Amino acid sequence: MPSEYRLRRRVNFYETDAAGIVHFSAFFRYMEEAEHALWREAGLSIHPSEGDIGFPRVATSFEFHRPLRFEQEFDVSMRIVAMTRKTIRYACLVTHGETKIATGSLTIACVRRRPNEPMTAIEIPPEIVACLQVAPDGD
Amino acid sequence: MPSEYRLRRRVNFYETDAAGIVHFSAFFRYMEEAEHALWREAGLSIHPSEGDIGFPRVATSFEFHRPLRFEQEFDVSMRIVAMTRKTIRYACLVTHGETKIATGSLTIACVRRRPNEPMTAIEIPPEIVACLQVAPDGD
Amino acid sequence: MPSEYRLRRRVNFYETDAAGIVHFSAFFRYMEEAEHALWREAGLSIHPSEGDIGFPRVATSFEFHRPLRFEQEFDVSMRIVAMTRKTIRYACLVTHGETKIATGSLTIACVRRRPNEPMTAIEIPPEIVACLQVAPDGD
Amino acid sequence: MPSEYRLRRRVNFYETDAAGIVHFSAFFRYMEEAEHALWREAGLSIHPSEGDIGFPRVATSFEFHRPLRFEQEFDVSMRIVAMTRKTIRYACLVTHGETKIATGSLTIACVRRRPNEPMTAIEIPPEIVACLQVAPDGD
Repeated sequence: MPSEYRLRRRVNFYETDAAGIVHFSAFFRYMEEAEHALWREAGLSIHPSEGDIGFPRVATSFEFHRPLRFEQEFDVSMRIVAMTRKTIRYACLVTHGETKIATGSLTIACVRRRPNEPMTAIEIPPEIVACLQVAPDGD
Repeated sequence: MPSEYRLRRRVNFYETDAAGIVHFSAFFRYMEEAEHALWREAGLSIHPSEGDIGFPRVATSFEFHRPLRFEQEFDVSMRIVAMTRKTIRYACLVTHGETKIATGSLTIACVRRRPNEPMTAIEIPPEIVACLQVAPDGD
Repeated sequence: MPSEYRLRRRVNFYETDAAGIVHFSAFFRYMEEAEHALWREAGLSIHPSEGDIGFPRVATSFEFHRPLRFEQEFDVSMRIVAMTRKTIRYACLVTHGETKIATGSLTIACVRRRPNEPMTAIEIPPEIVACLQVAPDGD
Repeated sequence: MPSEYRLRRRVNFYETDAAGIVHFSAFFRYMEEAEHALWREAGLSIHPSEGDIGFPRVATSFEFHRPLRFEQEFDVSMRIVAMTRKTIRYACLVTHGETKIATGSLTIACVRRRPNEPMTAIEIPPEIVACLQVAPDGD
Protein backbone atom coordinates (compact mmCIF):
# COMPACT_ATOMS: atom_id res chain seq x y z
CA MET A 1 0.00 0.00 0.00
CA PRO A 2 2.01 2.97 -1.23
CA SER A 3 1.92 6.28 0.61
CA GLU A 4 4.49 8.11 -1.47
CA TYR A 5 6.19 8.14 -4.84
CA ARG A 6 9.39 9.65 -6.20
CA LEU A 7 9.36 10.61 -9.86
CA ARG A 8 12.63 11.24 -11.72
CA ARG A 9 12.14 13.79 -14.47
CA ARG A 10 14.09 16.00 -16.86
CA VAL A 11 13.09 19.58 -17.77
CA ASN A 12 11.59 19.77 -21.27
CA PHE A 13 12.31 22.80 -23.42
CA TYR A 14 8.61 23.71 -23.72
CA GLU A 15 8.44 23.98 -19.91
CA THR A 16 10.93 26.88 -19.85
CA ASP A 17 10.05 30.53 -20.37
CA ALA A 18 11.75 33.68 -21.63
CA ALA A 19 13.39 34.18 -18.21
CA GLY A 20 15.37 31.00 -19.00
CA ILE A 21 13.82 28.92 -16.21
CA VAL A 22 10.92 26.49 -15.76
CA HIS A 23 7.63 28.39 -15.79
CA PHE A 24 6.01 28.22 -12.35
CA SER A 25 2.80 26.67 -13.71
CA ALA A 26 4.79 23.59 -14.81
CA PHE A 27 5.43 22.61 -11.17
CA PHE A 28 1.74 21.87 -10.72
CA ARG A 29 1.95 19.55 -13.72
CA TYR A 30 5.04 17.85 -12.29
CA MET A 31 3.21 17.37 -8.99
CA GLU A 32 0.23 15.82 -10.76
CA GLU A 33 2.47 13.50 -12.79
CA ALA A 34 3.92 12.17 -9.52
CA GLU A 35 0.43 11.84 -8.00
CA HIS A 36 -0.81 9.75 -10.92
CA ALA A 37 2.34 7.59 -10.81
CA LEU A 38 1.63 7.01 -7.09
CA TRP A 39 -1.90 5.85 -7.97
CA ARG A 40 -0.58 3.52 -10.68
CA GLU A 41 1.92 2.13 -8.14
CA ALA A 42 -1.14 1.37 -5.99
CA GLY A 43 -2.79 -0.44 -8.91
CA LEU A 44 -5.23 2.42 -9.51
CA SER A 45 -5.99 4.96 -12.20
CA ILE A 46 -7.16 8.39 -11.04
CA HIS A 47 -9.20 8.74 -14.25
CA PRO A 48 -10.24 5.28 -15.49
CA SER A 49 -11.73 5.03 -18.98
CA GLU A 50 -15.05 3.88 -17.48
CA GLY A 51 -16.99 4.98 -14.40
CA ASP A 52 -18.33 8.27 -13.11
CA ILE A 53 -16.01 8.88 -10.15
CA GLY A 54 -13.55 11.76 -10.37
CA PHE A 55 -11.01 13.57 -8.18
CA PRO A 56 -11.04 17.31 -8.89
CA ARG A 57 -8.42 19.46 -7.21
CA VAL A 58 -9.80 21.66 -4.42
CA ALA A 59 -6.67 23.46 -3.20
CA THR A 60 -3.02 23.62 -4.16
CA SER A 61 0.09 25.68 -3.48
CA PHE A 62 3.80 25.92 -4.20
CA GLU A 63 6.73 27.77 -2.69
CA PHE A 64 9.69 28.20 -5.04
CA HIS A 65 13.20 28.17 -3.54
CA ARG A 66 15.53 27.81 -6.55
CA PRO A 67 14.95 27.84 -10.32
CA LEU A 68 15.12 24.78 -12.60
CA ARG A 69 16.61 25.06 -16.09
CA PHE A 70 16.41 23.21 -19.41
CA GLU A 71 17.59 19.59 -19.33
CA GLN A 72 18.24 19.52 -15.58
CA GLU A 73 17.22 16.27 -13.92
CA PHE A 74 15.11 16.55 -10.81
CA ASP A 75 12.97 14.50 -8.44
CA VAL A 76 9.34 15.02 -7.48
CA SER A 77 8.40 13.34 -4.20
CA MET A 78 4.67 13.09 -3.60
CA ARG A 79 3.47 11.92 -0.20
CA ILE A 80 -0.04 11.36 1.20
CA VAL A 81 -0.21 13.40 4.41
CA ALA A 82 -3.91 13.17 5.24
CA MET A 83 -7.04 11.29 4.19
CA THR A 84 -10.63 12.02 5.21
CA ARG A 85 -13.72 10.17 4.01
CA LYS A 86 -14.00 12.49 1.02
CA THR A 87 -10.56 14.06 0.50
CA ILE A 88 -6.86 13.26 0.15
CA ARG A 89 -4.04 15.70 0.90
CA TYR A 90 -0.49 15.41 -0.45
CA ALA A 91 2.80 17.15 0.28
CA CYS A 92 5.25 17.56 -2.60
CA LEU A 93 8.99 18.20 -2.62
CA VAL A 94 10.94 18.99 -5.78
CA THR A 95 14.71 18.55 -5.54
CA HIS A 96 17.69 18.82 -7.92
CA GLY A 97 20.40 16.67 -6.38
CA GLU A 98 20.77 17.99 -2.83
CA THR A 99 19.15 21.32 -3.68
CA LYS A 100 15.57 21.94 -2.56
CA ILE A 101 13.79 23.53 -5.54
CA ALA A 102 10.16 23.81 -4.45
CA THR A 103 7.63 22.56 -1.90
CA GLY A 104 3.98 22.08 -2.73
CA SER A 105 0.65 20.83 -1.47
CA LEU A 106 -2.45 19.42 -3.13
CA THR A 107 -5.89 18.50 -1.82
CA ILE A 108 -8.30 16.51 -3.96
CA ALA A 109 -11.92 15.52 -3.35
CA CYS A 110 -13.93 12.56 -4.57
CA VAL A 111 -16.96 13.42 -6.72
CA ARG A 112 -19.57 11.76 -8.87
CA ARG A 113 -19.63 13.22 -12.39
CA ARG A 114 -22.72 12.65 -14.51
CA PRO A 115 -23.38 14.20 -17.92
CA ASN A 116 -25.11 17.59 -17.61
CA GLU A 117 -25.27 17.44 -13.83
CA PRO A 118 -23.13 19.36 -11.35
CA MET A 119 -20.44 17.26 -9.65
CA THR A 120 -21.45 15.90 -6.22
CA ALA A 121 -18.99 15.26 -3.39
CA ILE A 122 -19.08 11.60 -2.34
CA GLU A 123 -17.10 9.28 -0.10
CA ILE A 124 -13.95 7.78 -1.56
CA PRO A 125 -14.91 4.23 -2.66
CA PRO A 126 -13.55 1.53 -0.28
CA GLU A 127 -11.61 -0.21 -3.07
CA ILE A 128 -9.57 2.99 -3.46
CA VAL A 129 -9.22 3.62 0.28
CA ALA A 130 -7.86 0.07 0.56
CA CYS A 131 -4.98 0.85 -1.82
CA LEU A 132 -3.65 4.13 -0.40
CA GLN A 133 -2.40 5.14 3.03
CA VAL A 134 -1.07 8.17 4.85
CA ALA A 135 2.75 8.29 5.01
CA PRO A 136 4.05 7.23 8.45
CA ASP A 137 5.80 10.51 9.21
CA GLY A 138 2.48 12.28 8.66
CA ASP A 139 2.26 15.91 7.74
CA MET B 1 -22.10 32.63 -43.35
CA PRO B 2 -18.53 33.28 -42.25
CA SER B 3 -15.61 31.75 -44.14
CA GLU B 4 -12.79 33.38 -42.22
CA TYR B 5 -11.93 35.00 -38.92
CA ARG B 6 -9.19 37.32 -37.73
CA LEU B 7 -8.18 36.97 -34.08
CA ARG B 8 -6.18 39.74 -32.36
CA ARG B 9 -3.96 38.26 -29.66
CA ARG B 10 -1.04 39.19 -27.40
CA VAL B 11 1.83 36.79 -26.52
CA ASN B 12 1.50 35.44 -23.00
CA PHE B 13 4.63 34.87 -20.93
CA TYR B 14 3.93 31.14 -20.53
CA GLU B 15 3.96 30.78 -24.33
CA THR B 16 7.62 31.83 -24.55
CA ASP B 17 10.61 29.51 -24.08
CA ALA B 18 14.22 29.77 -22.98
CA ALA B 19 15.23 30.98 -26.46
CA GLY B 20 13.19 34.12 -25.66
CA ILE B 21 10.56 33.52 -28.35
CA VAL B 22 7.12 31.89 -28.62
CA HIS B 23 7.47 28.09 -28.53
CA PHE B 24 6.52 26.62 -31.90
CA SER B 25 3.82 24.38 -30.38
CA ALA B 26 1.90 27.50 -29.28
CA PHE B 27 1.14 28.42 -32.91
CA PHE B 28 -1.10 25.36 -33.19
CA ARG B 29 -2.99 26.61 -30.17
CA TYR B 30 -3.31 30.08 -31.66
CA MET B 31 -4.64 28.53 -34.89
CA GLU B 32 -7.22 26.51 -32.96
CA GLU B 33 -8.32 29.59 -30.97
CA ALA B 34 -9.04 31.36 -34.26
CA GLU B 35 -10.84 28.29 -35.64
CA HIS B 36 -13.15 28.12 -32.62
CA ALA B 37 -13.81 31.86 -32.80
CA LEU B 38 -14.78 31.39 -36.47
CA TRP B 39 -17.26 28.69 -35.44
CA ARG B 40 -18.72 30.94 -32.72
CA GLU B 41 -19.05 33.71 -35.32
CA ALA B 42 -21.10 31.20 -37.34
CA GLY B 43 -23.31 30.52 -34.31
CA LEU B 44 -21.70 27.12 -33.68
CA SER B 45 -19.61 25.45 -31.03
CA ILE B 46 -17.03 22.92 -32.21
CA HIS B 47 -17.45 21.00 -28.93
CA PRO B 48 -20.98 21.53 -27.58
CA SER B 49 -21.72 20.36 -24.04
CA GLU B 50 -24.19 17.77 -25.38
CA GLY B 51 -24.11 15.48 -28.41
CA ASP B 52 -21.72 12.84 -29.73
CA ILE B 53 -20.32 14.65 -32.79
CA GLY B 54 -16.66 15.68 -32.74
CA PHE B 55 -14.04 17.19 -35.03
CA PRO B 56 -10.62 15.62 -34.43
CA ARG B 57 -7.65 17.06 -36.27
CA VAL B 58 -6.33 14.81 -39.05
CA ALA B 59 -3.45 16.89 -40.45
CA THR B 60 -1.74 20.16 -39.62
CA SER B 61 1.41 22.10 -40.47
CA PHE B 62 3.20 25.39 -39.90
CA GLU B 63 6.04 27.25 -41.56
CA PHE B 64 7.74 29.81 -39.35
CA HIS B 65 9.14 32.97 -40.96
CA ARG B 66 9.89 35.30 -38.04
CA PRO B 67 9.81 34.85 -34.24
CA LEU B 68 7.21 36.34 -31.90
CA ARG B 69 8.21 37.67 -28.49
CA PHE B 70 6.56 38.33 -25.10
CA GLU B 71 3.77 40.92 -25.15
CA GLN B 72 3.84 41.43 -28.92
CA GLU B 73 0.40 41.84 -30.46
CA PHE B 74 -0.33 39.72 -33.49
CA ASP B 75 -3.20 38.59 -35.74
CA VAL B 76 -4.27 35.06 -36.56
CA SER B 77 -6.31 34.82 -39.77
CA MET B 78 -8.12 31.52 -40.23
CA ARG B 79 -9.81 30.83 -43.54
CA ILE B 80 -11.83 27.85 -44.80
CA VAL B 81 -10.18 26.77 -48.06
CA ALA B 82 -11.95 23.46 -48.73
CA MET B 83 -14.94 21.45 -47.51
CA THR B 84 -15.79 17.86 -48.40
CA ARG B 85 -18.71 15.85 -47.05
CA LYS B 86 -16.61 14.70 -44.10
CA THR B 87 -13.73 17.19 -43.76
CA ILE B 88 -12.92 20.89 -43.51
CA ARG B 89 -9.55 22.39 -44.45
CA TYR B 90 -8.28 25.78 -43.23
CA ALA B 91 -5.35 28.02 -44.13
CA CYS B 92 -3.84 30.16 -41.35
CA LEU B 93 -1.72 33.29 -41.49
CA VAL B 94 -0.06 34.81 -38.42
CA THR B 95 1.11 38.41 -38.79
CA HIS B 96 2.68 41.04 -36.53
CA GLY B 97 1.80 44.38 -38.12
CA GLU B 98 3.02 44.09 -41.72
CA THR B 99 5.40 41.23 -40.89
CA LYS B 100 4.43 37.71 -41.88
CA ILE B 101 5.23 35.50 -38.89
CA ALA B 102 3.94 32.04 -39.83
CA THR B 103 1.66 30.21 -42.27
CA GLY B 104 -0.26 27.12 -41.29
CA SER B 105 -2.84 24.59 -42.39
CA LEU B 106 -5.34 22.42 -40.57
CA THR B 107 -7.67 19.64 -41.73
CA ILE B 108 -10.40 18.32 -39.45
CA ALA B 109 -12.82 15.42 -39.89
CA CYS B 110 -16.30 14.87 -38.52
CA VAL B 111 -16.71 11.80 -36.28
CA ARG B 112 -19.24 10.18 -34.00
CA ARG B 113 -17.81 9.59 -30.52
CA ARG B 114 -19.53 7.05 -28.27
CA PRO B 115 -18.27 5.88 -24.88
CA ASN B 116 -15.93 2.88 -25.21
CA GLU B 117 -16.26 2.71 -28.99
CA PRO B 118 -13.72 3.83 -31.58
CA MET B 119 -14.56 7.12 -33.33
CA THR B 120 -16.36 6.67 -36.67
CA ALA B 121 -16.01 9.12 -39.59
CA ILE B 122 -19.41 10.54 -40.54
CA GLU B 123 -20.77 13.26 -42.80
CA ILE B 124 -20.78 16.77 -41.40
CA PRO B 125 -24.36 17.42 -40.19
CA PRO B 126 -26.33 19.71 -42.56
CA GLU B 127 -27.02 22.26 -39.80
CA ILE B 128 -23.23 22.80 -39.55
CA VAL B 129 -22.66 22.76 -43.32
CA ALA B 130 -25.34 25.46 -43.58
CA CYS B 131 -23.33 27.81 -41.33
CA LEU B 132 -19.86 27.64 -42.87
CA GLN B 133 -18.54 28.26 -46.36
CA VAL B 134 -15.30 28.16 -48.33
CA ALA B 135 -13.61 31.56 -48.63
CA PRO B 136 -14.17 33.10 -52.08
CA ASP B 137 -10.50 33.29 -53.00
CA GLY B 138 -10.27 29.56 -52.32
CA ASP B 139 -7.01 27.85 -51.51
CA MET C 1 -1.47 54.23 -10.41
CA PRO C 2 -3.34 50.99 -10.82
CA SER C 3 -3.68 48.55 -7.92
CA GLU C 4 -5.90 46.01 -9.63
CA TYR C 5 -6.97 44.69 -13.01
CA ARG C 6 -9.93 42.71 -14.28
CA LEU C 7 -9.27 40.48 -17.28
CA ARG C 8 -12.17 39.12 -19.34
CA ARG C 9 -11.26 35.76 -20.86
CA ARG C 10 -12.84 32.76 -22.58
CA VAL C 11 -11.80 29.14 -21.94
CA ASN C 12 -9.70 27.74 -24.79
CA PHE C 13 -10.12 24.11 -25.79
CA TYR C 14 -6.46 23.29 -25.05
CA GLU C 15 -7.00 24.42 -21.45
CA THR C 16 -9.54 21.66 -20.80
CA ASP C 17 -8.70 18.09 -19.79
CA ALA C 18 -10.26 14.64 -20.11
CA ALA C 19 -12.51 15.36 -17.11
CA GLY C 20 -14.19 17.96 -19.33
CA ILE C 21 -13.13 20.97 -17.25
CA VAL C 22 -10.27 23.50 -17.19
CA HIS C 23 -7.09 21.82 -15.93
CA PHE C 24 -6.12 23.28 -12.56
CA SER C 25 -2.66 24.35 -13.78
CA ALA C 26 -4.32 26.74 -16.26
CA PHE C 27 -5.58 28.96 -13.43
CA PHE C 28 -1.99 29.94 -12.60
CA ARG C 29 -1.59 31.01 -16.23
CA TYR C 30 -4.82 33.01 -16.10
CA MET C 31 -3.60 34.71 -12.91
CA GLU C 32 -0.30 35.61 -14.56
CA GLU C 33 -2.05 36.97 -17.65
CA ALA C 34 -4.03 39.33 -15.41
CA GLU C 35 -0.86 40.31 -13.51
CA HIS C 36 0.96 41.25 -16.72
CA ALA C 37 -2.08 43.18 -17.96
CA LEU C 38 -2.03 45.09 -14.66
CA TRP C 39 1.63 45.99 -15.24
CA ARG C 40 0.90 47.13 -18.80
CA GLU C 41 -1.97 49.25 -17.43
CA ALA C 42 0.69 50.85 -15.18
CA GLY C 43 2.90 51.53 -18.21
CA LEU C 44 5.31 48.73 -17.28
CA SER C 45 6.45 45.41 -18.68
CA ILE C 46 7.26 42.68 -16.17
CA HIS C 47 9.84 41.26 -18.62
CA PRO C 48 11.21 44.08 -20.80
CA SER C 49 13.33 43.11 -23.81
CA GLU C 50 16.35 44.84 -22.25
CA GLY C 51 17.67 44.97 -18.70
CA ASP C 52 18.64 42.41 -16.08
CA ILE C 53 15.80 42.84 -13.56
CA GLY C 54 13.32 39.99 -13.17
CA PHE C 55 10.35 39.02 -11.00
CA PRO C 56 10.37 35.27 -10.28
CA ARG C 57 7.43 33.81 -8.44
CA VAL C 58 8.19 32.81 -4.84
CA ALA C 59 4.84 31.47 -3.64
CA THR C 60 1.42 30.85 -5.11
CA SER C 61 -1.82 29.07 -4.31
CA PHE C 62 -5.35 28.46 -5.54
CA GLU C 63 -8.57 27.18 -4.03
CA PHE C 64 -11.07 25.84 -6.53
CA HIS C 65 -14.78 26.28 -5.83
CA ARG C 66 -16.51 25.45 -9.14
CA PRO C 67 -15.26 24.07 -12.48
CA LEU C 68 -14.91 26.08 -15.69
CA ARG C 69 -15.76 24.52 -19.05
CA PHE C 70 -14.89 25.04 -22.72
CA GLU C 71 -15.94 28.41 -24.16
CA GLN C 72 -17.25 29.79 -20.88
CA GLU C 73 -16.45 33.46 -20.35
CA PHE C 74 -14.95 34.40 -17.03
CA ASP C 75 -13.21 37.25 -15.22
CA VAL C 76 -9.84 37.23 -13.49
CA SER C 77 -9.45 40.03 -10.94
CA MET C 78 -5.88 40.60 -9.80
CA ARG C 79 -5.26 42.96 -6.89
CA ILE C 80 -2.06 44.12 -5.19
CA VAL C 81 -2.53 43.39 -1.47
CA ALA C 82 0.98 44.01 -0.13
CA MET C 83 4.30 45.51 -1.21
CA THR C 84 7.62 45.30 0.63
CA ARG C 85 10.94 46.71 -0.57
CA LYS C 86 11.66 43.46 -2.43
CA THR C 87 8.32 41.71 -2.95
CA ILE C 88 4.78 42.20 -4.23
CA ARG C 89 1.79 40.10 -3.17
CA TYR C 90 -1.44 39.76 -5.14
CA ALA C 91 -4.88 38.28 -4.45
CA CYS C 92 -6.78 36.79 -7.37
CA LEU C 93 -10.47 36.06 -7.84
CA VAL C 94 -11.85 34.10 -10.79
CA THR C 95 -15.58 34.47 -11.42
CA HIS C 96 -18.08 33.25 -14.03
CA GLY C 97 -20.95 35.73 -13.88
CA GLU C 98 -22.01 35.77 -10.23
CA THR C 99 -20.38 32.41 -9.51
CA LYS C 100 -17.08 32.36 -7.62
CA ILE C 101 -14.85 29.87 -9.45
CA ALA C 102 -11.48 30.12 -7.69
CA THR C 103 -9.42 32.29 -5.35
CA GLY C 104 -5.66 32.57 -5.61
CA SER C 105 -2.58 34.31 -4.32
CA LEU C 106 0.81 35.12 -5.79
CA THR C 107 3.99 36.56 -4.30
CA ILE C 108 6.82 37.73 -6.55
CA ALA C 109 10.31 38.98 -5.68
CA CYS C 110 12.61 41.37 -7.51
CA VAL C 111 15.95 39.89 -8.62
CA ARG C 112 18.96 40.76 -10.72
CA ARG C 113 19.61 38.13 -13.40
CA ARG C 114 23.05 37.98 -14.97
CA PRO C 115 24.26 35.32 -17.42
CA ASN C 116 25.79 32.35 -15.59
CA GLU C 117 25.28 33.85 -12.15
CA PRO C 118 22.64 32.90 -9.59
CA MET C 119 19.76 35.37 -9.28
CA THR C 120 20.18 37.91 -6.46
CA ALA C 121 17.28 39.45 -4.54
CA ILE C 122 17.30 43.24 -4.90
CA GLU C 123 15.02 46.15 -4.04
CA ILE C 124 12.25 46.91 -6.51
CA PRO C 125 13.50 49.86 -8.61
CA PRO C 126 11.84 53.19 -7.66
CA GLU C 127 10.50 53.73 -11.20
CA ILE C 128 8.47 50.54 -10.77
CA VAL C 129 7.41 51.30 -7.19
CA ALA C 130 6.16 54.66 -8.46
CA CYS C 131 3.72 52.98 -10.87
CA LEU C 132 2.04 50.39 -8.63
CA GLN C 133 0.15 50.63 -5.35
CA VAL C 134 -1.58 48.45 -2.82
CA ALA C 135 -5.34 48.25 -3.33
CA PRO C 136 -7.22 50.45 -0.80
CA ASP C 137 -9.19 47.62 0.78
CA GLY C 138 -5.90 45.85 1.46
CA ASP C 139 -5.64 42.14 2.03
CA MET D 1 26.96 8.89 -34.21
CA PRO D 2 23.22 8.58 -33.62
CA SER D 3 20.78 9.22 -36.44
CA GLU D 4 17.60 8.30 -34.61
CA TYR D 5 16.09 7.96 -31.16
CA ARG D 6 13.10 6.14 -29.73
CA LEU D 7 11.46 7.75 -26.69
CA ARG D 8 9.08 5.73 -24.49
CA ARG D 9 6.47 8.00 -22.93
CA ARG D 10 3.16 7.86 -21.08
CA VAL D 11 0.28 10.30 -21.67
CA ASN D 12 -0.01 12.86 -18.86
CA PHE D 13 -3.43 14.03 -17.75
CA TYR D 14 -2.69 17.67 -18.60
CA GLU D 15 -2.02 16.63 -22.21
CA THR D 16 -5.61 15.45 -22.71
CA ASP D 17 -8.54 17.67 -23.66
CA ALA D 18 -12.31 17.70 -23.20
CA ALA D 19 -12.70 15.29 -26.14
CA GLY D 20 -10.96 12.73 -23.91
CA ILE D 21 -7.85 12.40 -26.10
CA VAL D 22 -4.38 13.94 -26.31
CA HIS D 23 -4.61 17.49 -27.65
CA PHE D 24 -3.00 17.68 -31.11
CA SER D 25 -0.56 20.41 -30.04
CA ALA D 26 1.02 17.97 -27.56
CA PHE D 27 2.40 15.83 -30.40
CA PHE D 28 4.75 18.65 -31.38
CA ARG D 29 6.02 18.65 -27.80
CA TYR D 30 6.49 14.87 -27.85
CA MET D 31 8.43 15.19 -31.13
CA GLU D 32 10.68 17.86 -29.63
CA GLU D 33 11.30 15.78 -26.51
CA ALA D 34 12.54 12.94 -28.74
CA GLU D 35 14.67 15.35 -30.78
CA HIS D 36 16.40 16.70 -27.65
CA ALA D 37 16.95 13.16 -26.35
CA LEU D 38 18.58 12.32 -29.71
CA TRP D 39 20.93 15.29 -29.29
CA ARG D 40 21.80 14.24 -25.72
CA GLU D 41 22.48 10.71 -27.04
CA ALA D 42 24.95 12.40 -29.42
CA GLY D 43 26.61 14.20 -26.49
CA LEU D 44 25.03 17.54 -27.43
CA SER D 45 22.55 20.00 -26.00
CA ILE D 46 20.32 21.82 -28.46
CA HIS D 47 20.19 24.81 -26.10
CA PRO D 48 23.40 24.94 -24.02
CA SER D 49 23.51 27.33 -21.08
CA GLU D 50 26.28 29.32 -22.79
CA GLY D 51 26.82 30.36 -26.39
CA ASP D 52 24.82 32.26 -28.99
CA ILE D 53 23.92 29.44 -31.40
CA GLY D 54 20.29 28.36 -31.63
CA PHE D 55 18.09 26.03 -33.68
CA PRO D 56 14.67 27.59 -34.30
CA ARG D 57 12.04 25.48 -36.01
CA VAL D 58 11.32 26.53 -39.61
CA ALA D 59 8.66 23.99 -40.65
CA THR D 60 6.72 21.19 -39.01
CA SER D 61 3.72 18.96 -39.67
CA PHE D 62 1.73 16.04 -38.28
CA GLU D 63 -0.82 13.62 -39.64
CA PHE D 64 -2.98 11.97 -37.00
CA HIS D 65 -4.16 8.40 -37.59
CA ARG D 66 -5.50 7.25 -34.20
CA PRO D 67 -6.10 9.05 -30.87
CA LEU D 68 -4.02 8.60 -27.72
CA ARG D 69 -5.66 8.56 -24.29
CA PHE D 70 -4.70 9.23 -20.66
CA GLU D 71 -2.02 6.89 -19.26
CA GLN D 72 -1.42 5.04 -22.54
CA GLU D 73 2.22 4.24 -23.17
CA PHE D 74 3.57 5.13 -26.59
CA ASP D 75 6.82 5.48 -28.52
CA VAL D 76 8.14 8.50 -30.37
CA SER D 77 10.74 7.62 -33.02
CA MET D 78 12.71 10.61 -34.30
CA ARG D 79 14.99 10.09 -37.27
CA ILE D 80 17.31 12.49 -39.12
CA VAL D 81 16.31 12.26 -42.80
CA ALA D 82 18.29 15.16 -44.29
CA MET D 83 21.07 17.58 -43.36
CA THR D 84 22.21 20.64 -45.33
CA ARG D 85 24.92 23.09 -44.28
CA LYS D 86 22.34 25.16 -42.38
CA THR D 87 19.36 22.87 -41.70
CA ILE D 88 18.38 19.48 -40.29
CA ARG D 89 15.20 17.62 -41.21
CA TYR D 90 13.61 14.87 -39.10
CA ALA D 91 10.81 12.34 -39.63
CA CYS D 92 8.77 11.32 -36.60
CA LEU D 93 6.60 8.28 -35.97
CA VAL D 94 4.35 7.92 -32.92
CA THR D 95 3.16 4.38 -32.17
CA HIS D 96 1.11 2.69 -29.44
CA GLY D 97 2.14 -0.95 -29.52
CA GLU D 98 1.62 -2.02 -33.13
CA THR D 99 -0.78 0.85 -33.84
CA LYS D 100 0.46 3.82 -35.84
CA ILE D 101 -0.79 6.93 -34.05
CA ALA D 102 0.77 9.85 -35.94
CA THR D 103 3.51 10.74 -38.42
CA GLY D 104 5.34 14.05 -38.28
CA SER D 105 8.15 16.10 -39.75
CA LEU D 106 10.36 18.88 -38.41
CA THR D 107 12.95 21.11 -40.06
CA ILE D 108 15.26 23.26 -37.95
CA ALA D 109 17.83 25.88 -38.97
CA CYS D 110 21.03 27.02 -37.29
CA VAL D 111 21.12 30.69 -36.27
CA ARG D 112 23.23 33.12 -34.30
CA ARG D 113 21.22 34.87 -31.60
CA ARG D 114 22.58 38.12 -30.14
CA PRO D 115 20.76 40.37 -27.68
CA ASN D 116 18.63 42.94 -29.51
CA GLU D 117 19.65 41.76 -32.96
CA PRO D 118 17.59 39.71 -35.39
CA MET D 119 18.63 36.04 -35.65
CA THR D 120 21.02 35.31 -38.54
CA ALA D 121 21.13 31.97 -40.40
CA ILE D 122 24.60 30.42 -40.14
CA GLU D 123 26.25 27.12 -40.98
CA ILE D 124 25.88 24.34 -38.42
CA PRO D 125 29.17 24.30 -36.43
CA PRO D 126 31.45 21.38 -37.41
CA GLU D 127 31.52 20.00 -33.83
CA ILE D 128 27.75 19.49 -34.10
CA VAL D 129 27.87 18.14 -37.66
CA ALA D 130 30.45 15.61 -36.43
CA CYS D 131 28.00 14.17 -33.89
CA LEU D 132 24.86 13.66 -36.01
CA GLN D 133 24.17 11.76 -39.21
CA VAL D 134 21.36 11.05 -41.62
CA ALA D 135 19.63 7.70 -40.98
CA PRO D 136 20.75 5.03 -43.49
CA ASP D 137 17.28 4.40 -44.91
CA GLY D 138 17.06 8.08 -45.76
CA ASP D 139 13.78 9.89 -46.16
